[in-house]
Amino acid sequence: MTTSGKHTTRKEGQAATIRDLPIGIKATGTRQESDSMGTIEVPAERYWGAQTQRSLIHFSIGDDHMPREVYHAYGYVKKAAAIVNAETGKLSRDKATLISRVADEVIAGKLDSEFPLYVWQTGSGTQSNMNVNEVISNRAIQLVGGTLGSKDPIHPNDHVNMSQSSNDTFVTAMHIATVLELTNRLIPNVEGLIHAMWEKAKTWMDVVKIGRTHLQDATPLTVGQEWSGYVIQLKDALDLVKQSMNGLSRLAVGGTAVGTGINTLPDFGPKIAAEIAHLTGHPFVSAPNKFAAQGSLDAMVNASAALRALAVALMKIANDIRWLGSGPRAGFHELNLPSNEPGSSIMPGKVNPTQEEAMVMVCIQVIGNDTAVAIAGSQGNFELNAMRPIIINNVLHSARILGDACEKLRRYSIEGTTLNKDKISKYVNESLMLVTALSPVIGYDKASAIAHKALDDNTTLREAALKSGYISANDFDTIVVPAHMVGDPHKDLEETRNVLRQ
Amino acid sequence: MTTSGKHTTRKEGQAATIRDLPIGIKATGTRQESDSMGTIEVPAERYWGAQTQRSLIHFSIGDDHMPREVYHAYGYVKKAAAIVNAETGKLSRDKATLISRVADEVIAGKLDSEFPLYVWQTGSGTQSNMNVNEVISNRAIQLVGGTLGSKDPIHPNDHVNMSQSSNDTFVTAMHIATVLELTNRLIPNVEGLIHAMWEKAKTWMDVVKIGRTHLQDATPLTVGQEWSGYVIQLKDALDLVKQSMNGLSRLAVGGTAVGTGINTLPDFGPKIAAEIAHLTGHPFVSAPNKFAAQGSLDAMVNASAALRALAVALMKIANDIRWLGSGPRAGFHELNLPSNEPGSSIMPGKVNPTQEEAMVMVCIQVIGNDTAVAIAGSQGNFELNAMRPIIINNVLHSARILGDACEKLRRYSIEGTTLNKDKISKYVNESLMLVTALSPVIGYDKASAIAHKALDDNTTLREAALKSGYISANDFDTIVVPAHMVGDPHKDLEETRNVLRQ
Amino acid sequence: MTTSGKHTTRKEGQAATIRDLPIGIKATGTRQESDSMGTIEVPAERYWGAQTQRSLIHFSIGDDHMPREVYHAYGYVKKAAAIVNAETGKLSRDKATLISRVADEVIAGKLDSEFPLYVWQTGSGTQSNMNVNEVISNRAIQLVGGTLGSKDPIHPNDHVNMSQSSNDTFVTAMHIATVLELTNRLIPNVEGLIHAMWEKAKTWMDVVKIGRTHLQDATPLTVGQEWSGYVIQLKDALDLVKQSMNGLSRLAVGGTAVGTGINTLPDFGPKIAAEIAHLTGHPFVSAPNKFAAQGSLDAMVNASAALRALAVALMKIANDIRWLGSGPRAGFHELNLPSNEPGSSIMPGKVNPTQEEAMVMVCIQVIGNDTAVAIAGSQGNFELNAMRPIIINNVLHSARILGDACEKLRRYSIEGTTLNKDKISKYVNESLMLVTALSPVIGYDKASAIAHKALDDNTTLREAALKSGYISANDFDTIVVPAHMVGDPHKDLEETRNVLRQ
Amino acid sequence: MTTSGKHTTRKEGQAATIRDLPIGIKATGTRQESDSMGTIEVPAERYWGAQTQRSLIHFSIGDDHMPREVYHAYGYVKKAAAIVNAETGKLSRDKATLISRVADEVIAGKLDSEFPLYVWQTGSGTQSNMNVNEVISNRAIQLVGGTLGSKDPIHPNDHVNMSQSSNDTFVTAMHIATVLELTNRLIPNVEGLIHAMWEKAKTWMDVVKIGRTHLQDATPLTVGQEWSGYVIQLKDALDLVKQSMNGLSRLAVGGTAVGTGINTLPDFGPKIAAEIAHLTGHPFVSAPNKFAAQGSLDAMVNASAALRALAVALMKIANDIRWLGSGPRAGFHELNLPSNEPGSSIMPGKVNPTQEEAMVMVCIQVIGNDTAVAIAGSQGNFELNAMRPIIINNVLHSARILGDACEKLRRYSIEGTTLNKDKISKYVNESLMLVTALSPVIGYDKASAIAHKALDDNTTLREAALKSGYISANDFDTIVVPAHMVGDPHKDLEETRNVLRQ
Repeated sequence: MTTSGKHTTRKEGQAATIRDLPIGIKATGTRQESDSMGTIEVPAERYWGAQTQRSLIHFSIGDDHMPREVYHAYGYVKKAAAIVNAETGKLSRDKATLISRVADEVIAGKLDSEFPLYVWQTGSGTQSNMNVNEVISNRAIQLVGGTLGSKDPIHPNDHVNMSQSSNDTFVTAMHIATVLELTNRLIPNVEGLIHAMWEKAKTWMDVVKIGRTHLQDATPLTVGQEWSGYVIQLKDALDLVKQSMNGLSRLAVGGTAVGTGINTLPDFGPKIAAEIAHLTGHPFVSAPNKFAAQGSLDAMVNASAALRALAVALMKIANDIRWLGSGPRAGFHELNLPSNEPGSSIMPGKVNPTQEEAMVMVCIQVIGNDTAVAIAGSQGNFELNAMRPIIINNVLHSARILGDACEKLRRYSIEGTTLNKDKISKYVNESLMLVTALSPVIGYDKASAIAHKALDDNTTLREAALKSGYISANDFDTIVVPAHMVGDPHKDLEETRNVLRQ
Repeated sequence: MTTSGKHTTRKEGQAATIRDLPIGIKATGTRQESDSMGTIEVPAERYWGAQTQRSLIHFSIGDDHMPREVYHAYGYVKKAAAIVNAETGKLSRDKATLISRVADEVIAGKLDSEFPLYVWQTGSGTQSNMNVNEVISNRAIQLVGGTLGSKDPIHPNDHVNMSQSSNDTFVTAMHIATVLELTNRLIPNVEGLIHAMWEKAKTWMDVVKIGRTHLQDATPLTVGQEWSGYVIQLKDALDLVKQSMNGLSRLAVGGTAVGTGINTLPDFGPKIAAEIAHLTGHPFVSAPNKFAAQGSLDAMVNASAALRALAVALMKIANDIRWLGSGPRAGFHELNLPSNEPGSSIMPGKVNPTQEEAMVMVCIQVIGNDTAVAIAGSQGNFELNAMRPIIINNVLHSARILGDACEKLRRYSIEGTTLNKDKISKYVNESLMLVTALSPVIGYDKASAIAHKALDDNTTLREAALKSGYISANDFDTIVVPAHMVGDPHKDLEETRNVLRQ
Repeated sequence: MTTSGKHTTRKEGQAATIRDLPIGIKATGTRQESDSMGTIEVPAERYWGAQTQRSLIHFSIGDDHMPREVYHAYGYVKKAAAIVNAETGKLSRDKATLISRVADEVIAGKLDSEFPLYVWQTGSGTQSNMNVNEVISNRAIQLVGGTLGSKDPIHPNDHVNMSQSSNDTFVTAMHIATVLELTNRLIPNVEGLIHAMWEKAKTWMDVVKIGRTHLQDATPLTVGQEWSGYVIQLKDALDLVKQSMNGLSRLAVGGTAVGTGINTLPDFGPKIAAEIAHLTGHPFVSAPNKFAAQGSLDAMVNASAALRALAVALMKIANDIRWLGSGPRAGFHELNLPSNEPGSSIMPGKVNPTQEEAMVMVCIQVIGNDTAVAIAGSQGNFELNAMRPIIINNVLHSARILGDACEKLRRYSIEGTTLNKDKISKYVNESLMLVTALSPVIGYDKASAIAHKALDDNTTLREAALKSGYISANDFDTIVVPAHMVGDPHKDLEETRNVLRQ
Repeated sequence: MTTSGKHTTRKEGQAATIRDLPIGIKATGTRQESDSMGTIEVPAERYWGAQTQRSLIHFSIGDDHMPREVYHAYGYVKKAAAIVNAETGKLSRDKATLISRVADEVIAGKLDSEFPLYVWQTGSGTQSNMNVNEVISNRAIQLVGGTLGSKDPIHPNDHVNMSQSSNDTFVTAMHIATVLELTNRLIPNVEGLIHAMWEKAKTWMDVVKIGRTHLQDATPLTVGQEWSGYVIQLKDALDLVKQSMNGLSRLAVGGTAVGTGINTLPDFGPKIAAEIAHLTGHPFVSAPNKFAAQGSLDAMVNASAALRALAVALMKIANDIRWLGSGPRAGFHELNLPSNEPGSSIMPGKVNPTQEEAMVMVCIQVIGNDTAVAIAGSQGNFELNAMRPIIINNVLHSARILGDACEKLRRYSIEGTTLNKDKISKYVNESLMLVTALSPVIGYDKASAIAHKALDDNTTLREAALKSGYISANDFDTIVVPAHMVGDPHKDLEETRNVLRQ
């Protein structure tokens, strides 16, 4: 539509030199800013404009602020939009350069303090989008020596937000922020933990220990086999996290207000997605259906579910480790966990499995966050799911605390954990469940009778077995050998290694 | 181990003829059955044995019974085990044939009434495994004219359960049951619903309607575009369900008691997985790490999350439809939903969006079930997650009600839904948000002033626009055309079709 | 309004004799029934009418049927309504007597098989209300020799439903059903469990054992003190359940369609509440605000939260008991839990804490159910929360399985549990945390050094203490006496008893 | 025990003058601090000691810090403990005065920056307790001119923590912090919202509007009746919050390490509870059973459930309001919600129900938080539930955001909401459900036929009724009067007022 081009060129005479000014406004008191509701006083030292100020007043709820990762991601969106708008002739090169320049500052986190809004705001994220638009506008104006609040030469809506709506860009920023958090922090930290556990698994692959099912003594396995299970649990969960990035890679931007792409060019979506992919290094693409991409937050719900999968696995593992480290005298105490700090303000010398406790709590939080995400995900209406801020806040929160907790668990617990081999050996040797090896020889029923007898009489299994007459001492000693009852740990090692390589 | 072979052949003389007897025991009163705890009276007309009877006494909690799908799946496990045990020489051909024969009856559901146990039982599912073992044993004994309860020639543990533990087989049966439920009921029903909605999307692709964001009037789109969003939401969610079958395809069987494969041959796992794949027609494989496969239920937790993804999408869609059908006089009433039944016992002539309400409730139940599954999934300890019955019950429940509800929604609501074109047209024409098309021409701020003015004066947008002097009548009429504001519906149609083909 | 009276008397000539006919219709094939949608074929041997039949067709989703407790409760509502309608002259005495007579059959469960509808139906419960109305109508017609389906002399809407709507009566039935389930099953079963635990607490009040915090050895307490904690947890949770009945006691009936009481007399609410209180023996009253009572399900959500409180407490207790019973050789094994059944299909002689596992699963299910209830509770709109069937089904489910599980846990585990005093004694004597008693004498820092030394050297605390020189042997032996470190168990017993008496 | 007294007096010579020094340490670089693990460098300008520093290193997980309200509450605990320890002769008056003096600074929030620890730490909260002990110790040392880190004359464990454990005090601080948050912020804010809604209810008590059930048109009620329902929902939920303070009022302090009260005097519990009650003005008492009070967090779980009850009610109400405000042209638009800010970055003039959206998100977060709390509450083991930090963080978070959101909703939405009386009147007059009033006169079936006819023919109800011949024009006009169909709004007003007064 040519009218659009006409509008863009309305002010095209003003190509001003960009000065190299440091961030910051030297002013005190307030400045007037305006929007369609009228004018409002804004702190003079701030870049933000009227809509940000209104939001600060109306939504100061709790201490939850929109995560800065969302703003960094928005920096990519605004930069990519400026580039594409310039390429397609909707925006002058000068304006595009100016917007890009400030967007880089946003991406680098240099303007973080200019994004003060709360999570609990409009459900579309419009206020945070406008916060970005306003800050880029005023910072750009400053860089070319204009008047703050004048919206000239860079208007928050007409230029920074050109070809965009909050409805398509905020969810786009959510996807970008999540992908970057997963890629840069969560995944490396989980991989680090997997690696540390895998090292333990290999080291301990031949240490025979008692198995436990229903918390009760069972047949033996090796410590390495047990830990190979942890490794695979984490690997499988991490694979789900990675798979969830497929959905996150599809961006809504280009759909604008309701998914139809009103006020943007038809190929704006694919072009900006390509630009964002270029800028971030992640293979983002344009969502094939913008109505689903804006009306739902399903890709985010799935990412949350993947994080929960990780939490579920980590909770089991962390619990195992703290139980195996319990004692030192009245617990399992197969593992010696590192003593990082005094455990009690009243019981001297007490050491507790605190890294594991922190991890368990993190996992529970992730499950709770995920419940909030799922509910919010179900509450979309028509062309918008207006539950975006709660969802991005919870997903980033989950990713962040899981990532950090994995790093801490690895560093301050797993890596320093050692075996208490005396206990491990004692348990396996005293176990009555070694009787299982007799079952194929004498049958389940007789084997069962032997085990019950040993327990009732509080004797060893061997004593009870020989007394029963069902088996000779020689056969018993040949058959009931814990080390022969653990299958093939080295084959298990190999298979685990193969899975890790996938 | 040769001793195992020796044991197997202990009773090899007794190869008896299998008679073609109908299912059923003609007896009244009770019969004595025994296990390692001793003897117990069992109803004489039942095939089950001592352990089933004990469980019935100790665990009659509520009305929740272990789903029959679990037993059908166990039929495959027992049959495949018998086949592999025979192939590897651990079990005589006669015994294997006999077990297979009865397992076929289990698979076909003919013995369903012999599996009366409750969900709330041992966390490993041992009691249900033994229920299967006992029933197969006694039914086999009956078929060869033996004495019920004698465990001869088929012993529940030594033969039916040969090479197996509950710890590896129950979770195997869980995977099989879930895969079959998803494949046979859920997926076809969701696909049916997608198809019905896709038909509507195509039919209504050119009907322009008002968009709504934040429940408020927004820029227009077509009804078909809106419904294409539903189609894609469901398609994406269904893809997650299908992907979750990857994890479910990995079977624990072969790990026996604690994952080491004690009392089974080293390659029993891959062999039985192949046999199960052959019998079911689904590409099951042996889980590469049995410690993870038995110590966790992560694949089930992920399947539950995928079902929840479907529920989240369906809840949004069902809510949209019931709101769009609201009225008839004081609601949106864009859609005419079929009137299937009187809606009120007191208000004559009332018709309600009941299919959608049922669907919303089903979706909420699935979210609640999923919470239970996630918690249970986190509660594993050491070599076993002993929360199996609750997980399989919830996952099958979710799959079942989602599948059925999709079928009912399609049949009794979607297929019969029609458009109320008068209302649809009226809304879009009266909308103030058509002003958005003016924004690229006159700028956001002036466009905003026009919209506010029209609202305050309760006039049409056109009136307010012309009055403002910002735009001529001619330009207004050229630019503000709803049908020009919906992008390219036919391209959207094409892209949606492409996604559906994937 | 006199017109109402006129209508009531329209058919007043037909007072027919009630015959004493057994329940059951001797007919085969189908019978025509009608409603405002037209006619429909219904199985001839069934009492239900057109609306029930339609619901059966449209809503056969899963296997979840509306709980029979809801229908029994509805029996009270219909009977009470008939009585009050007769008293106020709206309904003839004859009709009222007839309806009451059939309502008694409903209350007694004699017509249970006539209520086949699914949970997943209309969100108001109208279909189940109409099911009751239709069954009462036809059974009443049968009793006076009328024509089934004629609605004469008892019309499902005009007479059985007189002065009522589903909107006020279904939630009333939900409250009644819940109160009765709590009163008749849950509360007595929890009290039974409390009693059994209290008996153990008293018996074991002087047995000194090791305390554990963070799973690690801590200072001692007595077994009885530990169990007194369980007793109080359960008592406190049960108090919440009882308190939740306050909200449940307030009934919506009288509000009819939207809370205004249209088509009923102004004092119908208080009168029918009084009648229901009389019939059930529970102090039900009329809800002071019918708009809240029908637009929300808050009292049900609170009842669910109370059940969850019980689940949270029971889960901790059940977990404690199964850990304390773990072993027998490689676990805590302070408790001997009863052996009720063989624990493993492969490991002979294995016994597992299955009652506790069942309880843990029940508790998790209750938490999951409660999540569904809370979500559903939040989804009301305007004058109705149309999420009733899911809520009543989950609340009754939770109450039922908790009640039953408490009974089973008490009977098959708690009552038969004994102490393994050797282990208990060994743990407490070997504990390093006895050092805590030295802290007030020699200070935290020196006490801490002693404990660390003992652990590092794997010696007794006494050896390390004496070696440290911080304390004399005499002082050590005077101060470090486990039995002196448990406070005053008998005072704790007394205080627990006082709480139980409240 | 006299040894305890002896220990206390070990250093009793040092009664030093307390100087009036401002908060702050003038130092740079680091200072050595020590604990039982050895020495560690701490920032020289900080009051905290070794254990705080270790925790900072080991637990820097995410951005979640232990809420400052916990530390303020701990200030009360430490002050009260010092007072009681002095009264009972365990602590010198000088030390007690010094500790009290610093505790007052903690209570007043003056030392907030000295409490930097993370939520994800030891599950007992020991590190935060030690943080308080260390800060009080060093600040006290500073005030008497001692050497920081010397623990002389105030030792973090021996004096500040005297008679206490983290196990009893942290949960005590949790209860105090929660009670104060509820009392000081949440309850007044909810009461403010109730009041504002009550004012609206009264003002609009006679405005007749269409009722809606299942989102569909139903019989009329008045706007005031509808809002009286909101008022009562909130009142009932608030009552639950207040009731939850009963459990919170019972304090664990006095139980020390495992509930037995080791290293404290027998009546320390009641005495310190009385002192805390005195200091805070809230009727705290000593928990009658310390084993339950420390082994569980049930009172906190119940407080969370009460907050969830509020969230469930608020979510329904906020949703109603945003739907009733939907439009302006294509929605319900019965309510005019205040326009606080521009609603869209692309659609000029758009105004959205943002306060309600923020509230809905807050409510969903509270439900998610509550799920985390319930799971954590179930995960106690033996003498400690080591999930304390996650629980206090979530409960305070929920209380805070609910309280703030209620204040904002009241101020920026409810108070400025007005009625769109034209729409309201139009809807009620056009409604077909007014037919309900005919039902008692002509019977449900005929009334139903009339309503269906009017809908099918798209005529008014009156036209269809007269055409049917079932009713005369005169009777119709007498009976079908919306204002006569709303019961007695003024009586409803009175009953609502009565409930509010309770």
